[in-house]
Amino acid sequence: MIPLKFSNGLIPVVVQDKKNRDILMVAFANEEAVGLTRTTGFAHYYSRSRKKIWKKGEESRHFQRVVRILVDCDGDCLVYEVEQTGAACHTGYPGCFYRTLEGTVISERVFNPEDVYKKTK
Amino acid sequence: MIPLKFSNGLIPVVVQDKKNRDILMVAFANEEAVGLTRTTGFAHYYSRSRKKIWKKGEESRHFQRVVRILVDCDGDCLVYEVEQTGAACHTGYPGCFYRTLEGTVISERVFNPEDVYKKTK
Repeated sequence: MIPLKFSNGLIPVVVQDKKNRDILMVAFANEEAVGLTRTTGFAHYYSRSRKKIWKKGEESRHFQRVVRILVDCDGDCLVYEVEQTGAACHTGYPGCFYRTLEGTVISERVFNPEDVYKKTK
Repeated sequence: MIPLKFSNGLIPVVVQDKKNRDILMVAFANEEAVGLTRTTGFAHYYSRSRKKIWKKGEESRHFQRVVRILVDCDGDCLVYEVEQTGAACHTGYPGCFYRTLEGTVISERVFNPEDVYKKTK
């Protein structure tokens, strides 16, 4: 296994849809979350705000099956290639990058967040 | 324009090849680098080690023409969709994510770094 460089215990993870190759989200993982991702085959991350490991989909049921993990030249960034159930973004869009910097929406909602989350994040 | 959230003055940028949709690299930009990217149409970043703005390709001539900039739901991460000249990675691979976490190389070198850079990074 390629040795990873964690910064303050964390490594950024870019999540890419295996099928259409959209970039779905960017999150952080710690060593344990990377390990859980490898052993379970489902994406795990570390929440800096909640200070704990989370499994993507634990609340929304929008799990990410991780098909492959790539590592960059410096060993300080990962890509999870995933099969996404539902949508990756809590806003209801398939991925978090649904707007241009100028504000044009380039995607369509696939769920209503109020139906999925107990409260709006 | 969507307001951006910089953390210690920086925002992470995921760079995606417009043509084949490979994730080429992840780097950081500050507000000035984002502005220069928008006004010039070429990718600019902020180097944390050299503490200065850099234009991708200024040494290697492997420029990135930025076709579109996407922003995530939280406004704290960007995607540059680019047309890459040469290769994005200083190792000679087209992008930095040329290996799986297990160490399998999934890509092929397109240049010899010694021919492009004065010294190996």
